[in-house]
Amino acid sequence: MTLQYWRDQIDQVDEELVRLLNRRAQYVQEIAKLKHRQGLPVHFPDREAQVFARICAANPGPLDGEALIRLFHSIIAESRRLEHDLINRHTSSEVF
Amino acid sequence: MTLQYWRDQIDQVDEELVRLLNRRAQYVQEIAKLKHRQGLPVHFPDREAQVFARICAANPGPLDGEALIRLFHSIIAESRRLEHDLINRHTSSEVF
Repeated sequence: MTLQYWRDQIDQVDEELVRLLNRRAQYVQEIAKLKHRQGLPVHFPDREAQVFARICAANPGPLDGEALIRLFHSIIAESRRLEHDLINRHTSSEVF
Repeated sequence: MTLQYWRDQIDQVDEELVRLLNRRAQYVQEIAKLKHRQGLPVHFPDREAQVFARICAANPGPLDGEALIRLFHSIIAESRRLEHDLINRHTSSEVF
């Protein structure tokens, strides 16, 4: 296999990652709306610990658990940013 | 839909993300072996720019391009760490 072959494989994975990361973000927006409607806090620390436990349990490698947790810290940070943006930008009942 | 419903959806996406991030890491390891065998540099800055251009072009939102680039910076940083680890740990022809 050539370098180009593996890069093409990575490009395909990246396209799927872009799709999934955005799908996750959509679900986070749904949760933000729900929390807003129900007056729930944006941040549930237990939920974050649960997400980390799940991803480490499902990890087949070669990434180690620490690498996965670093990556999901970034993913969750972007989710939280999106959640706060949504709440700050739209407080009307049209969105929520 | 309840909060639990959306969390279950996110958990499913996260499992798929774990699978894909590890698949990407496997491909990165293949590339590391190839570069090592062919005496190529580990880091190709043009390739990184190409990856960012591709993911931004494929981005349907709601994440914006900047968020995606931040996420892929983290993903590429973990790839690079894995690539360096592999090269530092195994220099024998058994691995490469």
